[in-house]
Parts: sequence; structure tokens; C-alpha cells
Amino acid sequence: MNESIARSVPYGIRGCLIDCIKDPFFYHNEQSVRWFIDGLLVIRSGRIIACGDYEKTIQNYPNLFVTDYRDRLITPGFIDTHVHYPQTAIIASYGKQLLEWLEKYTFPEERKFQNIDYAAQVADIFLNELLRNGTTTSMVWSAVFPESVQALFQAAKSRNLRLITGKVMMDRNAPDYLLDTAETAYSESRSLIEQWHGCDRLSYALTLRFAPTSTPAQLKITQQLQNEYPSVYLQTHLSENFGELAWVKELFPNENDYLEVYEKAGLVHDRSVFAHGIHLSSSEFQRLSDAGAAIAFCPTSNLFLGSGLFKLHEAKLNTISVGLATDIGAGTSFSLLQTANEAYKVGQLQGHTLSAIQMLFLLTLGGARSLSLDDTIGNLNIGKEADFVVWNLKATPLMAFRNAAPLKNWDDVNDRLFSLMMMGDDRCVEATYILGDRVTLS
Amino acid sequence: MNESIARSVPYGIRGCLIDCIKDPFFYHNEQSVRWFIDGLLVIRSGRIIACGDYEKTIQNYPNLFVTDYRDRLITPGFIDTHVHYPQTAIIASYGKQLLEWLEKYTFPEERKFQNIDYAAQVADIFLNELLRNGTTTSMVWSAVFPESVQALFQAAKSRNLRLITGKVMMDRNAPDYLLDTAETAYSESRSLIEQWHGCDRLSYALTLRFAPTSTPAQLKITQQLQNEYPSVYLQTHLSENFGELAWVKELFPNENDYLEVYEKAGLVHDRSVFAHGIHLSSSEFQRLSDAGAAIAFCPTSNLFLGSGLFKLHEAKLNTISVGLATDIGAGTSFSLLQTANEAYKVGQLQGHTLSAIQMLFLLTLGGARSLSLDDTIGNLNIGKEADFVVWNLKATPLMAFRNAAPLKNWDDVNDRLFSLMMMGDDRCVEATYILGDRVTLS
Repeated sequence: MNESIARSVPYGIRGCLIDCIKDPFFYHNEQSVRWFIDGLLVIRSGRIIACGDYEKTIQNYPNLFVTDYRDRLITPGFIDTHVHYPQTAIIASYGKQLLEWLEKYTFPEERKFQNIDYAAQVADIFLNELLRNGTTTSMVWSAVFPESVQALFQAAKSRNLRLITGKVMMDRNAPDYLLDTAETAYSESRSLIEQWHGCDRLSYALTLRFAPTSTPAQLKITQQLQNEYPSVYLQTHLSENFGELAWVKELFPNENDYLEVYEKAGLVHDRSVFAHGIHLSSSEFQRLSDAGAAIAFCPTSNLFLGSGLFKLHEAKLNTISVGLATDIGAGTSFSLLQTANEAYKVGQLQGHTLSAIQMLFLLTLGGARSLSLDDTIGNLNIGKEADFVVWNLKATPLMAFRNAAPLKNWDDVNDRLFSLMMMGDDRCVEATYILGDRVTLS
Repeated sequence: MNESIARSVPYGIRGCLIDCIKDPFFYHNEQSVRWFIDGLLVIRSGRIIACGDYEKTIQNYPNLFVTDYRDRLITPGFIDTHVHYPQTAIIASYGKQLLEWLEKYTFPEERKFQNIDYAAQVADIFLNELLRNGTTTSMVWSAVFPESVQALFQAAKSRNLRLITGKVMMDRNAPDYLLDTAETAYSESRSLIEQWHGCDRLSYALTLRFAPTSTPAQLKITQQLQNEYPSVYLQTHLSENFGELAWVKELFPNENDYLEVYEKAGLVHDRSVFAHGIHLSSSEFQRLSDAGAAIAFCPTSNLFLGSGLFKLHEAKLNTISVGLATDIGAGTSFSLLQTANEAYKVGQLQGHTLSAIQMLFLLTLGGARSLSLDDTIGNLNIGKEADFVVWNLKATPLMAFRNAAPLKNWDDVNDRLFSLMMMGDDRCVEATYILGDRVTLS
């Protein structure tokens, strides 16, 4: 069958559908979630055109070709709001804490991404890992070299992925071989934006490593780029580690706190995504909220580097948009399920128990809101892009034993979703769909 | 070939051997570890008769039949020092903290273990999970019913496993259907000890749930059993959760602290293993050390229930024996690799970075010392029982990419061991050997 005809004819996906329609940090779980144990998703031309109970919905689509995933869970594709693709090869490198880790592992590896062939090879591996783990949208860090951005955008384009990335900007306090200047950061970013921002499902993010590695001049040209291209994103790191905090204080003695460095550069707005934010003050939380900026919560990384426990509860009380993130390579898994597992544990240690629905929200609609993409992705609403994942709840012998009984009611669905997050990994991904097409990993 | 002949003829296992010979919390890693990139293990009649560099060692064994696992890591079998087999089915159950979790999930599930058929079914699944994950020795909790102990010992015996378990004793503050009495606890435990303690590789542990669920009368008969059978173990829980601590204080107003409850009952000695010990005082650490008692450190469980961060560093400074433990079902994985991953993170959060060798020690020789079994298992010394695991360092696409280069030197071995602990799971277990026989999972 001709592919373009196939895509314009509706087809169905049958299984246990579950998605978020409201924020469960502010509404009851039951009000925030939509679920159909025997559900039907109808797709045409890459978009969702119906979502409901199978028996009812199928009435409107006689002769619909349906793929049967009953007893599997189907969720919107997961969203990774902070991940470094040039760090794929250095995952699980032994080290102390942030600043030494950067010096010892990150910088030497990132140097290799000047070579577009190496960059393309890793971009392939990286995107395959995302898809194998059910991650369909991501906000990604490339390296300082424009070649690294080209390679990733090309690889994402060929897979029809929704992806955001940008060239790292850093012009001081890193090895010479990784430094740009204010001028080259400006010209290279501009040219990448012109080429890629808005191309298919791709968007550009101004990608400032963090305050200590940019001169005031570079912060200024970042602001200039933001003004010239108001729809591009801004991604950076914020308040991850005490050593980093002390360093920022030393380098920016006239700013009252870390966030103010970015505020003065005009970089705190509703398209900004700040990774970590572990040691933010109440005032910083409040100002992030006022600006509509988002935080990427990276639990496996925060624990691996001993950075600390993110105060998700406080961020949400301040109505800040928060997404979950693997933060590969300081994060220890590409799986956003395992990331949710550790987010849960970070909550437990602080006496705030996350529900399965709250975690699902962070992984889907909450992540989409953090990236201002909730009109396009994040749940199974009619009209949204058909990025979704089919989860096998019996993917390992232990899960098969634990989850042997069929799904009968809301308690079962909720329990299985939770168990998926605690016990699941890439083996549970039975299928990943991008714009309604099932992904075949190359 | 006849099996008994096969076992009496030496045979070889070739691969990258690594084990601990000293405690790396007190000696440098390099002094504590023994490794051969191309090593040979020679086995006869279930025991190790040689361990060394392949080229040298093979000289002494012309015509040796050798199984080739080059580029794989071979370690002693892992030791799980605290795990509840009747909680296999309730892993990853959503809850708050310890005491509610027991009420809601644990007790109703444990009730089922009065039925020996159900117990036998779960015992099979449980032991297969241990072996699939490279765990060859374990100190296990059964349920209150003698049937549950019978089922597990039978299943372990049929697999030639080294395993310790016992009937739970609790005669108050739990649902009626789970309570024994001081008298039945005594008579049932005694009869199980007579039947099983010292049978093949099996040992018995007096298994007191924790202080709040035993009357002073039951504590007393436990002491009596300990006196009558000095070589049986004692396992219980200690200082896991603040709610528990307050409860102990209320129930035992005359004791100065939690440990003193057990001390007064004569249960703190060199065959005692206490799970958790998160909130121990300096005095309690010191007294545990003086008594030669051990602690089972259960990081995934401690995080899952929000119990807190175990002070491993302080325990080791007090020269207390510590083993790692999954604590299924509050623990979230049967994999002791993933358990090491979270032990590392618990250390990082406290500013104490664990080395890969320190984690290997906790999983092998350290665990063996905690169970007073280091004359028998725990490393690859000549004469020890041949329980070991072959680890595939390229078991997933991501690991294959990260670990593509061949092992060349100590830095490589150390790095791969660390990456195995951070990224690995049951997929990395290429083979588990029990007494020199490769396990086939039923």
C-alpha cells in the first residue's frame, strides 16, 4: 500500500489507553486522568482523530483496520526535557561531583563532536536509545560545534521526530578546544536557527552551558539572539551543586543570586528551561514562576552526582512547569520509567509521595507544558500528533508474575502504571509510534 | 558423561576474573582486589582448586576442558543479606511508609503462605529470580507459617543453594491470622531447626519480625532457642523508620534505645543480622560493632519507603560488617547491581563516594563476612565453593556501545565493573554457577 494513502486512511490502535488531561498536582488524580481499559485510538495523517472506549468508538469507523494491543498500556510518548547526546558514551563514568566530572569525562568526549561522522554515529545511537525507551520528544544538548547540531537535526528529521537542540555556547572556564567566542556563538547559532528552527518538527534552543562558562559579552549576544528570534528556546543549567553556586557568586559578585545572572541577561522567560534547580531559594522559585520558566528535574543525575534532592513539591506549589529528564550522561539510564522510579524516591525522602498519575503527568503533559508544546503533544486529545507508546506489563518474568491478572478497574490500571514505573525498563516498550507510524529501529 | 565423574574431573572457566581479598573500606582498592584480564578458574567437585592468569595456570592442567568467557567479567556469586520471599508478588506496591505498607500489602500477601502449594510456587519463582540476577546466596525471610519455610528450604535444596531462612515470629500487633505465640514460635522453630539447619548448604535463622510485634515472652523464647542452638542465625529489623522508633519507645519504655531491646533479649551477637539501621545512634553503632553483629543495607527499599539514608561510612568506621540487600518487596529490584547503583547514590548524597571495588566487596566477601560464611564463599580463593557469575558487559545496545573496547588494563576493568553496577541488570547475567554447575532456570 502506498504510504501516503495509508496515512490518509484512518486506522485504529486498541489497548488500555491512559493519559493526563489536567495537572494532578492541582486536581485529584481521578480528575486529571483519562483511561479506557479497552480503548481505541483512531489516527489519520499522523494525528489523533478519535480516542475513547473501543465498543463505542468503533461504531463510527466501520471497516477500520485495528492493531490489537489489549492488556498493554498505551500512553502518550514520553518527553525528556534535558539530555546531552554527546555524553552518550560516558554514561556511568565514575566520579565525584559536578565540576570534576565535567573536567574529567564530559569535556574530552564532547571534543570528538567536531567530527561530523562521529557526531552522526552517536546521534543515531542516541535517538535509537530514546525510541527504544519510549521517549518521543526531547530537549537535547549538542556540543559546542555546529557540526554536532547538524548531525542531530539530520538524524531527528529522518525519523520525523519532534526535537529541540542547539549549539552549546561557552567562551570561558573550559578547555580551549571547547571554547567559542561571543561572536562565533552569535553567528553560528544564528545560522543554525535559520536552517533548522521550525523545519518539520524541529526547534532550536539557545544552549548556554551555564553562567560560569560564559562571559558577560556572551550572555549579551544570547539576549540579542533571543530578541531577534523570540520563538527559539533557551536551555541552561541552574543551581545544581554547591561548588557551582560558590563559583557563580565569585564570578558574578554584583548579582544577588544565581537566577539573577540569567535574569539580567533577559534569559528567564516562558521558553526557558532550566535544568536541576536543586538549591533554589524561595525567591528564585517565585521569580521563575512569575516568568513562566520551566525546570527539568533530573533525579538519576542528581543522585549520581550527589547534587541533592530537588524540591518538586515547592516548585509545583509555585506553579512552575516541571518536566522529567534523564540528563544523560550524568543520569544513569535512558529510561524515563527508571527516572520516574528515582523521582518517586526523591519525593519519598522528603515526605512527599508522588502518585503514578503525577509521574505520568511529568513524563507527558507536564513535559509538554514545560516546552510550550502542549497544544501539539502530551496527551491523546483529538488533533494532537500521534506520538505514543505501547507498554508491555509482562515484559520480564517477575512482571509477568506480578501482573498476571487482567486489568479490570481503575485500581488495577493505577497499580500497573505504578509498577511499570518502579520495575520497567526498555524491555517494556512493545512499540513506539511517531506521527502514527510504528518505529522500526535501524 | 556421568555427572559425579564429571564433577570429580577438573574443568576450567576462562574470563576476566575479579574478586576481593581484603576489605577496601580499610585497604586501598588495589590491595583489596585480585584480577586477571585473561584468567582461569579451575574447579573440581564443586570447589575452586585454582585461580590465576590463564597462560600460567593452564600449564598445570594439560587437557583441561575450558569454557571460554573471554571479555566477560567473572565475579563470585552475589550475596543478598536481607530479602522477603513472601513479598515477591507485592513488589512495587504503591504506598506511604513502613507501617502502613506492612498493613496494606505485606500482611495480606503473607497470609497466603499457609498454603504450601502457593508457597512452593512462589519459592520457585523467587529462587529463579535470584539466580537470573546472579545472586547465589541469600538470607531470606519466610512467613510465619512453617509451611512457608518447608517450601523454600525444599526449593533451595533441589538447586544446591546456600541459603538461610526461618519462620517469622510475631505474637502481637499484627493481624490475628499472622500471629503465633511464644509457645508455637518455640516449638515450630525448634522442629524446623532440627530438620533443616546444617542440611546440605542450608542454615536456619531465628526470624523475629521486629521488636514491636513480639511480646517479652516471645523475645525470651527466642533467646532460649539461641542458647539451645548457638549456631543458628538471628535476623530482624532495626531502626528503619521514625514511626517505628516512636512505637518501640512506647512499647519498651524501660530500654534506653531500640538496640537495647534486642540486647536485653541476648539477640545481639556475631550471628545476628539487622536490616536497615538507618537511624542508629553512635552508641548503637558502637555496641553492634562490639557484639560482632552485622547490618544489611537495603538502599532501594530505604529510598522506596522514604526511610532515609543509611550511614554506611559510619558503620564501616565502627568496623561493623555490612552486606547489601534487595529487601524485596519494599526493595524495587531483585538485581544486586541495581542495588549497588542506589547504594552508590545514597553515598553520593552524603558526600561519601563508594568505589566499584567497595561495592563489589559489599556484594561478595563483605556479605559473606556478615553471614560468617567467608571461609566458604565470597571470593575465588582455592578451596571455596564454586558459586560464581559470568557478566556480559555488552548485554544491551547502550552497554555494547559504551563498552566496545577490549579490556586492556586495571583502569578498564575498574571502569567496566562500575558501569556494570550503574547500567546493568539481569540481562547482564550470562551464566550463574552453583557449586561449579551452570544453572539452567526451570
